[in-house]
Amino acid sequence: MSNNTAGRVIVCKAAVAWEAGKPLVIEQVEVAPPQAMEVRIKIAYTSLCHTDIYFWEAKGQTPLFPRIFGHEAAGIVESVGEGVEDFQPGEHVLPVFTGECGECAHCKTEESNMCELLRINTDRGVMIGDGKSRFSINGKPIYHFLGTSTFSEYTVVHYGCLCKINPAAPLDKVCILSCGPSTGLGATLNVAKPKKGSTVAVFGLGAVGLAAAEGARICGASRIIGIDLVFSRFERAGKFGVTDFVNPKDHDKPVQEVIAEMTGGGVDRSVECTGNVDAMISAFECVHDGWGVAVLVGVPNRDDVFKTNPMNVLNERTLKGTFFGNYKPRTGLPSVVDMYMNKELDVEKFITHRVPFSDINKAFDYMLKGESLRCIVCLEDGVVLK
Amino acid sequence: MSNNTAGRVIVCKAAVAWEAGKPLVIEQVEVAPPQAMEVRIKIAYTSLCHTDIYFWEAKGQTPLFPRIFGHEAAGIVESVGEGVEDFQPGEHVLPVFTGECGECAHCKTEESNMCELLRINTDRGVMIGDGKSRFSINGKPIYHFLGTSTFSEYTVVHYGCLCKINPAAPLDKVCILSCGPSTGLGATLNVAKPKKGSTVAVFGLGAVGLAAAEGARICGASRIIGIDLVFSRFERAGKFGVTDFVNPKDHDKPVQEVIAEMTGGGVDRSVECTGNVDAMISAFECVHDGWGVAVLVGVPNRDDVFKTNPMNVLNERTLKGTFFGNYKPRTGLPSVVDMYMNKELDVEKFITHRVPFSDINKAFDYMLKGESLRCIVCLEDGVVLK
Ligand SMILES: NC(=O)c1ccc[n+]([C@@H]2O[C@H](COP(=O)([O-])OP(=O)(O)OC[C@H]3O[C@@H](n4cnc5c(N)ncnc54)[C@H](O)[C@@H]3O)[C@@H](O)[C@H]2O)c1
Ligand SMILES: NC(=O)c1ccc[n+]([C@@H]2O[C@H](COP(=O)([O-])OP(=O)(O)OC[C@H]3O[C@@H](n4cnc5c(N)ncnc54)[C@H](O)[C@@H]3O)[C@@H](O)[C@H]2O)c1
Ligand SMILES: [Zn+2]
Ligand SMILES: [Zn+2]
Ligand SMILES: [Zn+2]
Ligand SMILES: [Zn+2]
Repeated sequence: MSNNTAGRVIVCKAAVAWEAGKPLVIEQVEVAPPQAMEVRIKIAYTSLCHTDIYFWEAKGQTPLFPRIFGHEAAGIVESVGEGVEDFQPGEHVLPVFTGECGECAHCKTEESNMCELLRINTDRGVMIGDGKSRFSINGKPIYHFLGTSTFSEYTVVHYGCLCKINPAAPLDKVCILSCGPSTGLGATLNVAKPKKGSTVAVFGLGAVGLAAAEGARICGASRIIGIDLVFSRFERAGKFGVTDFVNPKDHDKPVQEVIAEMTGGGVDRSVECTGNVDAMISAFECVHDGWGVAVLVGVPNRDDVFKTNPMNVLNERTLKGTFFGNYKPRTGLPSVVDMYMNKELDVEKFITHRVPFSDINKAFDYMLKGESLRCIVCLEDGVVLK
Repeated sequence: MSNNTAGRVIVCKAAVAWEAGKPLVIEQVEVAPPQAMEVRIKIAYTSLCHTDIYFWEAKGQTPLFPRIFGHEAAGIVESVGEGVEDFQPGEHVLPVFTGECGECAHCKTEESNMCELLRINTDRGVMIGDGKSRFSINGKPIYHFLGTSTFSEYTVVHYGCLCKINPAAPLDKVCILSCGPSTGLGATLNVAKPKKGSTVAVFGLGAVGLAAAEGARICGASRIIGIDLVFSRFERAGKFGVTDFVNPKDHDKPVQEVIAEMTGGGVDRSVECTGNVDAMISAFECVHDGWGVAVLVGVPNRDDVFKTNPMNVLNERTLKGTFFGNYKPRTGLPSVVDMYMNKELDVEKFITHRVPFSDINKAFDYMLKGESLRCIVCLEDGVVLK
């Protein structure tokens, strides 16, 4: 990376979503220099998370197009805007869909990672500093997604949404720690907190759910029940510690009843990683009364309603939810990269596919068909200055 | 109390509910001797809790009549059944609507007080040992309520539902610790656990809610917001630490929005003590995202549905429920009596009315009109042997 790009508009390739549900198109886009408190990064690898798919399909969500999706990635700092002191060109970073300003009540308490300023905002398509986009094609702005827009060779991110990582960490692997696997792992380690020997149910065996299962295995769970609608999801789940498999379609009764029968009244902990509201309700109702804790992770549709008989709550069950596994992106996420570097966490097993940037639409197909956990998209070096 | 009553049927007065919603009738009832694992106690004082009213009105509940209600009381052991080693005649006890067998998974974990064997069962009108009632009139059984049925001069209770207390504790005061005030206090101290300086909302300013407020005051809450529909409820709430009052009827918008505006985004903790499902939803939605915890205490109607947008959960709010403030009746409740004896807890301020047993229906009127917090019913000594 040469420093002579700083302060100038970069012309590079980005995968633009022009319309809901239509294949992305690789376009030449102009990426403006970072403004105050912003960092421009060169994306080395990005992967696809189900949250990208929801907002690309835009079913039951607020559509906003044209937009550059992508929020699970690793890159290298190209240049920094005014006032950014924590980052230098050349440093390795993971962009994150939620941020850490360090100053607000959420950043100051250990309990929350929902920064008042930089928390996830799925409706905003512009930078928070000036309300404008840094991407354009022929002067026409292209919207951002989750403040990251990593389906582009270069992107601009608020410095509070960047995690500086160990430069020895291989970017083509740790890129996936920027969202899904850290989310599932943290949902278990930081929120559900199963005790050694306990039983854990995981709803949805995508990358997020399997990372939640991996977290349960690390905590010493004695039994990890995986629930999914797609049979092929069970095949690789054993590698993530899943000991029992339940497909709700195989039973006439609600899956929470099946689980209660399997476990003498319910599991100690459950983690929901599907985004389906019925699975959320089952995940809550399948935990044991008296002490069970259910954690919701999946992103629901906008008008979904969570419904349960209040006696299920009164019977001493706990319901919680989490974004990004309660990790704070700047101060908490480096510990997950360290777990990988110390071989306490296997990242490779989440990576099922790799494609060049030009084939990014294949990553969508693999996830939609339920074939992939994570598909890594490798971005080529094709910078052009304007 | 003379020991010559042991093993014999006692004829005494009890207030029998013959029909839903109709005034109780003081009748001569026969109280059989305690069977294995049971204790017969002479009730000295009983008070009325809203849970009695729900099952007496039997709206949206399963009706079961004729029945002897009452579950908040203090008494003296008259005799014990086979196998009871922990209790002796003459000891002072509080009967409790939930029990502690000491053997089950719930009794063995610190997290739960929902004993598998002796947990609350509002539909059962008989003793668990033999499935029969110990009360009868002319040979016709009268149903029990919550395993306690304290609106009777004598009653029979499973020994696991009895808390042995300091004999120096005045029974006409500590009788109310057998349900409501301990429930509210424990919901805050044991479940919501507000930190010093935090904000707490309490829904419902009856004895349970005011005890929850008292718990918040003991924890050092900086602001305690009391919510009730009845203006007169606010008058005495100041004595329980309530600093702000909100009547949802005074506002056009949902009370959770009013509270969010008052507190810059929501309270740190809320405790719902109404039994109304809309109040339960408001109590959940009024806690701050990121760290807020809501605790449900009120007993809902059987077909109520708790509904919320799952994003309210995902935004890192916690929902919990509790029976009896998570106190275990045998091993945990004595600590509450000790708090009273050590002057850490004021019990007198909950007691607004006193009536003789013959006027027990007045206690119902006071509560239905919202005039009373707790009305103590004094039972006279009128034992007759058969
Ligand atoms: N809270 C957060 O911070 C956060 C972060 C990342 C992802 N997410 C969300 O987590 C969820 C999982 O993401 P992913 O990338 O692992 O997706 P994925 O598509 O790879 O996996 C989801 C799995 O859930 C299964 N599923 C769907 N409905 C189900 C049901 N009713 N019962 C059982 N299984 C069901 C699917 O078959 C699939 O295998 C998505 O909703 C995503 O938006 C949340
Ligand atoms: N979980 C348990 O272990 C347990 C134990 C005892 C009592 N309870 C329940 O706790 C609740 C309170 O009992 P109590 O004896 O204090 O009753 P109470 O009747 O003295 O007090 C209830 C208060 O709630 C208020 N209220 C009703 N609906 C409301 C609403 N929508 N918004 C705001 N306020 C509302 C009423 O005006 C009243 O002041 C009852 O539901 C009772 O059954 C539960
Ligand atoms: Zn994601
Ligand atoms: Zn912040
Ligand atoms: Zn009660
Ligand atoms: Zn037990």
